[in-house]
Parts: sequence; structure tokens; C-alpha cells
Amino acid sequence: MELSPDWVVGFVDGEGSFHVSVNENPKTKLGYQVLPEFVVVQHQRDLQVLYALKSFFKCGVVRKNNGDRWCYRVRRLECLKAICEFFVKHPLKTKKNVDRIRFCRVVGYMLEGRHLSLEGLLEIVEIALQMNTQQRDALLRIKRDLEAKVRYSPPLGESQGER
Amino acid sequence: MELSPDWVVGFVDGEGSFHVSVNENPKTKLGYQVLPEFVVVQHQRDLQVLYALKSFFKCGVVRKNNGDRWCYRVRRLECLKAICEFFVKHPLKTKKNVDRIRFCRVVGYMLEGRHLSLEGLLEIVEIALQMNTQQRDALLRIKRDLEAKVRYSPPLGESQGER
Repeated sequence: MELSPDWVVGFVDGEGSFHVSVNENPKTKLGYQVLPEFVVVQHQRDLQVLYALKSFFKCGVVRKNNGDRWCYRVRRLECLKAICEFFVKHPLKTKKNVDRIRFCRVVGYMLEGRHLSLEGLLEIVEIALQMNTQQRDALLRIKRDLEAKVRYSPPLGESQGER
Repeated sequence: MELSPDWVVGFVDGEGSFHVSVNENPKTKLGYQVLPEFVVVQHQRDLQVLYALKSFFKCGVVRKNNGDRWCYRVRRLECLKAICEFFVKHPLKTKKNVDRIRFCRVVGYMLEGRHLSLEGLLEIVEIALQMNTQQRDALLRIKRDLEAKVRYSPPLGESQGER
């Protein structure tokens, strides 16, 4: 199945979603992991459309979601970068474009490694809070935690003892 | 907002629906009214996309649906004919195309006036039953009623007395 860029934009305007979740992960330096994800969910009868999207973007995976629902999912940063570049060139027409812009800002931050600093991570949490999220309460808790840590961490170049 | 045919196909693949409902209506000769309807529903934040679809098809209306949901809706047969012609030229890529084909068959029948005969109406109810419908039980009742009427109505050219 051959897809055109305009069809992909229309379909993603309808069915796509751009998520940024932030999860506790004690293995990371700051205790949190940022997970940006581009997802299109379909009933299994339209599995071939999900595979066509995978071919179109030359990226991502097709996975079973829940019950008879499947999804096309992209998590790899380099792939998300390519997807962001596509949607900059071919903008969404619905208000989903606002989330797409925020999403791509987070992807850009991560490519620069800004999610590895307290301040950068806090910025990402604040962007995620502006997006259509089901994680609002958790993000607000993480935000408060990071704000507290920023307040109590010494500025760069100062050691704890110098205060 | 300017829409391209491919974007419209992609968006309708995601968000559009093709319904055929059959409702009791004592004002009609056969007691039932067929209502084919093409609908795209969106949150009110994307009202402008619904108006863009209306401009694109040069047909239909934009109406409030439920709560913060609005819809672009086409019911007029001549408009549905134009919409069917568009989707014949620009086919949907999802399995929704199967419903679209059935839908357009019903529209064609109605344009020929076949819904005004018992046999034609019965055919339409049978097509509607094959579609993605929330009206299954009601359609099955109507089907049984029409089948009974077909059995007990004299063939064309015969009066009741001749049997």
C-alpha cells in the first residue's frame, strides 16, 4: 500500500498521537526517564495501514496494543527526529499540531542531552504538562520534586562545602 | 484552510463515518424512512477543519453534536452522490472503504427511487445490516416486517382478488 504525504498528514490528524511521558527510573542519574512516543492505533482489520506507515517513515514498530487494537509506534530518538522533520514540512491541520510542536521541542532537547540535567528535565516536564496528557498528577508530583532539587543543588562550579 | 484530496482521504479514513439508518415513519408509504449520512465528528477546537471540509465538498452542514463535539454532516442525496464520486476517484485506504462502497450502493438505489418499493427497501435494509451499525436489532426487526409484507403482497399486475 503506497501512502502519499498528504494522506499521512490527514490520517495522523485523525488517528495519531504525540505523547511525552516521564517515569520514575532509579537506574537514571536523576531518577526519571523521559519517553517521547509517536503512536497510531488501529483495529486489527487495518493492520496493513500500520505497516504502510512503518514503510512510509522507514522507522518504528507495529505491535499489539489491547484486545483487537494494534499500534504503529516510534520511540527511537533518531526516528522521532525524522518524523518531526516530516511534520515541519507537512504540517498537521488540526490543533494536534500544537502538541506536535511541543513534542518535537522535547525530542530536540533530548537530542541535545538536556534531559540529563535537572533544569532541562524540569523544562521537559513543564512542556509535557502543557500537552494532552493522562499523566497530569504524576507530572505535577515530578515537577515539585525537581523544583525542590533545583533549589537545593549548588550552581555549577560551586561545591557543597562553599555555601 | 485549503485541503488537498489526499489529506481529506486520510482524515476521513481516520475520522469519517458512513451510516445508513432506517427509521419508522408513518408518513411514508412503506412506513419506513431511509437516512444515509456521511459524518465527521471533531472536538470544537477543530471546528475550522469541519468548515474546511464543508468548503471542500461544497455541501453539507456543520452542527453541534454533543457537549464539546461538533460534526460535519451530509444528508442531501445529491451531495452524497458527489461525495461518493469523490471517494470512487480517491479511495479510502482503511477497511472503512468496504462500508463506503455499501453506503454508496444505498445512495445509488435511492437516487433510482428503489427505496420506495418493498423489495428495494428490503435490499437496503440488508445492505445496512452488513455495515458497521449500532442499529442491528432495529434493522433485523424491520427486515422481518418487510419480508412478511413482501410474502403477502401480490406481484405487480395482480389484484388481491385474483389469488
